Amino acid sequence: MKAICKTKAEPGAEYIDVEIPKIKSDELLIKIHATSICGSDLPIYFSGALAARKMTPPFIFGHELCGEVVEIGEKARGFAKGDFVSVESHIFCGMCYQCRNDQRHVCSNLQILGIDTQGGFAEYAAIPARCAWKHSDDSLKDIGSIMEPLGNAVFATLVEDIVGKSVLISGLGPQGLFAAQIAKACGASQVICTETSDFRKNLGKKMGADVIIDPTDPDTLKKIIEAGGEKSGIDVVVEMSGNPSAINTALHAVKPAGKFVAFGLPKGDITMDYGNQIIFKAITVQGITGREIFRSWYKMESLLKSKAIDPRPVITHTFKMKDFKQAFETAADPKKECGKILLIP
Amino acid sequence: MKAICKTKAEPGAEYIDVEIPKIKSDELLIKIHATSICGSDLPIYFSGALAARKMTPPFIFGHELCGEVVEIGEKARGFAKGDFVSVESHIFCGMCYQCRNDQRHVCSNLQILGIDTQGGFAEYAAIPARCAWKHSDDSLKDIGSIMEPLGNAVFATLVEDIVGKSVLISGLGPQGLFAAQIAKACGASQVICTETSDFRKNLGKKMGADVIIDPTDPDTLKKIIEAGGEKSGIDVVVEMSGNPSAINTALHAVKPAGKFVAFGLPKGDITMDYGNQIIFKAITVQGITGREIFRSWYKMESLLKSKAIDPRPVITHTFKMKDFKQAFETAADPKKECGKILLIP
Amino acid sequence: MKAICKTKAEPGAEYIDVEIPKIKSDELLIKIHATSICGSDLPIYFSGALAARKMTPPFIFGHELCGEVVEIGEKARGFAKGDFVSVESHIFCGMCYQCRNDQRHVCSNLQILGIDTQGGFAEYAAIPARCAWKHSDDSLKDIGSIMEPLGNAVFATLVEDIVGKSVLISGLGPQGLFAAQIAKACGASQVICTETSDFRKNLGKKMGADVIIDPTDPDTLKKIIEAGGEKSGIDVVVEMSGNPSAINTALHAVKPAGKFVAFGLPKGDITMDYGNQIIFKAITVQGITGREIFRSWYKMESLLKSKAIDPRPVITHTFKMKDFKQAFETAADPKKECGKILLIP
Amino acid sequence: MKAICKTKAEPGAEYIDVEIPKIKSDELLIKIHATSICGSDLPIYFSGALAARKMTPPFIFGHELCGEVVEIGEKARGFAKGDFVSVESHIFCGMCYQCRNDQRHVCSNLQILGIDTQGGFAEYAAIPARCAWKHSDDSLKDIGSIMEPLGNAVFATLVEDIVGKSVLISGLGPQGLFAAQIAKACGASQVICTETSDFRKNLGKKMGADVIIDPTDPDTLKKIIEAGGEKSGIDVVVEMSGNPSAINTALHAVKPAGKFVAFGLPKGDITMDYGNQIIFKAITVQGITGREIFRSWYKMESLLKSKAIDPRPVITHTFKMKDFKQAFETAADPKKECGKILLIP
Repeated sequence: MKAICKTKAEPGAEYIDVEIPKIKSDELLIKIHATSICGSDLPIYFSGALAARKMTPPFIFGHELCGEVVEIGEKARGFAKGDFVSVESHIFCGMCYQCRNDQRHVCSNLQILGIDTQGGFAEYAAIPARCAWKHSDDSLKDIGSIMEPLGNAVFATLVEDIVGKSVLISGLGPQGLFAAQIAKACGASQVICTETSDFRKNLGKKMGADVIIDPTDPDTLKKIIEAGGEKSGIDVVVEMSGNPSAINTALHAVKPAGKFVAFGLPKGDITMDYGNQIIFKAITVQGITGREIFRSWYKMESLLKSKAIDPRPVITHTFKMKDFKQAFETAADPKKECGKILLIP
Repeated sequence: MKAICKTKAEPGAEYIDVEIPKIKSDELLIKIHATSICGSDLPIYFSGALAARKMTPPFIFGHELCGEVVEIGEKARGFAKGDFVSVESHIFCGMCYQCRNDQRHVCSNLQILGIDTQGGFAEYAAIPARCAWKHSDDSLKDIGSIMEPLGNAVFATLVEDIVGKSVLISGLGPQGLFAAQIAKACGASQVICTETSDFRKNLGKKMGADVIIDPTDPDTLKKIIEAGGEKSGIDVVVEMSGNPSAINTALHAVKPAGKFVAFGLPKGDITMDYGNQIIFKAITVQGITGREIFRSWYKMESLLKSKAIDPRPVITHTFKMKDFKQAFETAADPKKECGKILLIP
Repeated sequence: MKAICKTKAEPGAEYIDVEIPKIKSDELLIKIHATSICGSDLPIYFSGALAARKMTPPFIFGHELCGEVVEIGEKARGFAKGDFVSVESHIFCGMCYQCRNDQRHVCSNLQILGIDTQGGFAEYAAIPARCAWKHSDDSLKDIGSIMEPLGNAVFATLVEDIVGKSVLISGLGPQGLFAAQIAKACGASQVICTETSDFRKNLGKKMGADVIIDPTDPDTLKKIIEAGGEKSGIDVVVEMSGNPSAINTALHAVKPAGKFVAFGLPKGDITMDYGNQIIFKAITVQGITGREIFRSWYKMESLLKSKAIDPRPVITHTFKMKDFKQAFETAADPKKECGKILLIP
Repeated sequence: MKAICKTKAEPGAEYIDVEIPKIKSDELLIKIHATSICGSDLPIYFSGALAARKMTPPFIFGHELCGEVVEIGEKARGFAKGDFVSVESHIFCGMCYQCRNDQRHVCSNLQILGIDTQGGFAEYAAIPARCAWKHSDDSLKDIGSIMEPLGNAVFATLVEDIVGKSVLISGLGPQGLFAAQIAKACGASQVICTETSDFRKNLGKKMGADVIIDPTDPDTLKKIIEAGGEKSGIDVVVEMSGNPSAINTALHAVKPAGKFVAFGLPKGDITMDYGNQIIFKAITVQGITGREIFRSWYKMESLLKSKAIDPRPVITHTFKMKDFKQAFETAADPKKECGKILLIP
């Protein structure tokens, strides 16, 4: 089959012929329908160092995928050939303390598909049956690959009660765009967003943002709080940028006893006014990684099928896998003139 | 002033001249803008017995009201003449265990306005300042009196997580109509309602019900579960009818580990399959009375101001107070061809 | 092997030779160390009708067991021969909505060991590997079979916050005895119990009950509330008797906004004052069946290993399996002069 | 009356004659029984700068106090002369968003007794009636002043579920000592503490700590996790030291999906590995300030009256107010050879 592979410890990748993966007894072989690009795929693509450390070339990356079940391991329960599935990228062991306490997304033996195992920028992928989400019909087939990141946004946005609350979405990357819409659909009274890119500001409006503030404005904090309508601050912040300055602005924006959802990953340490912003304001900071398996999937599917949310406007580009270079360059464009990008085998 | 009073232990009431109430030091005098009819006003109006037992004639009933502050007791903090207020009808003491544990709506010394104290079907009413909800502008003036019942519906409908869940609203009286809309606005995936009256079925559609089932249909339970889309049952039931048969149908409809919100008051005891429907299904039954003071008010105000909800279609009739007989007969009409009814002094 | 079997649709059972079970690919064969008698085993033993309806003779009942792993199915992960295990009796499918939403104890396809499948009053039992709880050492070997019911009590007693709260344990059967101790160990301020049997009252004192009231006393309700120290009622009720009168006394005992845990199974329907006791008091009724799999197991193991709780005093009798008649008669004795009874192969 | 006053912008204080405070209409005059020293009193005592900025001399500080009601303002409800009261130091307005949403401890108009208003190191103090906690008998009179900090520890230690959990108490100052005991009394399986002072280590053992680790040990993190018994980390951390290094050790100690309670105030900003320790571990950080008013007070009183906890061993010194210099020097001793210190008028 063809696959986008890291073949050496250098920036970039190659689109080459490799063996179709052989499935283990608890795995499914998936004929891939689409694989989308995650922000975390960019450092894998552009850096040589990371690839060299973690992966044995030829290494197939990509972890947001969907497709058709074409082969079923003997121990895999609940699937038939022809089933259409999206894939949970967090491969949990099912046996550790976290897994047996319903916290599979932080499994002690967690492997991430396409990072710790061979991934999905390819024609086929082998995935553990326990990580497959079976679709009951074809209505979500066109968005099947983005259910992985969308589930992440569903988890993050709804982890705190947002009904009738002001919500700040800090950063309108694809996750922020999803989050803005989810918040609005689930009763948030004000959805306030921060974003620098005009392209994404426009997408934000389509996704239902009430107010979008450019964080280069020196009055950003003041404007956020004014938009929330309550001078003591914002009820719920969902920090999705990972930008150190945005993280601190967002912390200052939270109301006393408010909620701060930590989602965007910064590159290094963060310095913060822990005493005044966390303790004296008595806020809750909730770290988010992955999705609740499978609570978030069920919730997401319900919101999609009832048409409460529709993430399709966030898919701005679709490329053939062979055109992967153009896709990654679009994704990494500093002008941020893209949302989600799909690659089709 | 003029007031609708129970003057004797007989059905009906009289519209007579009484003294304008004298406020106590912690009270406000309100010039009433509108008072709406609650289902619990009907037995007061139509029965002589109840009135005789609880009230000293001439007794003014009515507890859903709004109006303008015209006089302020010396101990009352936070109000100015001219403020427009809605009224929390549950007069809590502020000193008992429940009040000091943020459960004022079930205060040990609870008095209900217009039942335990002189009420609001009148030109003026004296209310404790701690029970007044001050409006910041005039945008909700036309619905000021129905914020009391709407807050009740907000509390009941949102007490359990409904995002992406199937929700059964059992009974489309005014509270059920409010609840259907609230559920839909806050992310419920399917809002399934039961109701017999065609008039209220039509209102239900306007308020966003996805499916309305007539409970006289012998397949009601089956149809409810089918509409929910998950054969093990409905995620969240909000029982608003108080009808013994509907309560039991609703209990059978709840999914294992599902949620049952008990709101509608039956006249006598209820017989239920406690073992199979509560224990073996491991459901949660949450009794609801009143509203969280003032959590529910803030949440409601946010939902109204962001236009996530608009209860105006439920107000189907407005009468002058002098025409109260017509109003009460409309409210009690067995055909149920009404929603909320407002009385204007 | 020898096993206690229902061999015909008649009261009683026989201790006969049967085949050692053949395990399926996802099962373990357990050499049984002990199996304890559950209240729900008594109708199986004493009735012919139930046995005739549900089971194909020779049918081995019993579902509270522990033992050593002696054979391992090829698909079973995480076990080695010689492992000592207790057994989760609720055989969940792992694939239904409830299972994938962390509610395995109310799985849509639930089977109960020893009721829906061949059980544990025998020398060997085949159990699904996913239902085995592996012990890390031998410290709990002597109480291995009663971890199933103890986990049930852990779940029921701790499902609501009891720290600094008055707790009513309604009924001091083995589960009530466990619950009294758990409540006391986890911060309950007053543990008030109701029980008729002197034998169990004495056990209740050993297990830490602060007050024990005989429910034949006409002032039971008054005495419960006085013992709680707060005249508006008891904070948390754990109803473990299933007795209709006790259920209603317990409902009346709960404080406004209090918590009622429904655990004891009545034989038929229950008639209750739903309006005043559930709605106007705004209580929460939480149905409990089984245990959270495996949250409750982890919590129980921690409480046992830290010696916060010690259920050993509740084990009052140990019999050889061949002496099963005496064991069942002791368990069913109307004088209730027993706690938990163990049967040893 | 006599009072310990800051009389000028200099380190230290004076014990001088001042006027007995005149109460406002909503206040009580308290004849002080005891006032204890809080860590936050030390910078007020030892620094001139702080005092100069915030207070008008002669300024009475001290905010942990109890005493007898000797005068009652006309608007104050619920008190009689002779009542014995402890005092909630967080003077909330009762009117802001936070107050009306049951978050009085982070009131938008919060004033701290003895910091923003005249305090309690004196013979008398005027306090708002709404901040008085009335004792029902004399059983807690000897610990009446330390109920303010103890309530703080109750709130912090019980804000997350600790039953059957490993708990790290980071720092055994008076609050850490209280917390260790509370955790143990409410079902924590392992109470692991860090502390440098031998005096406080000994107190920690008395208060029930299972393991005490000296954080100067380079293997502190490893030893903490080993003591917790689960290699993925500690379930619940209560950080009470405010030490930047301890905060980071504590963050690293938390298990994935674990809980981190932020209580100890550092002097400046904190730099942390937000990405790995908060997001990838998906932990919850809960900032704590003050106590839930009055939820925490009720819970504390119950735990005290049931003798689940007894904070008396933490009171290591009692001085006459005139001997305040010795008291403050003892409190500030770098050897930390003290727990709580009481001053008696």
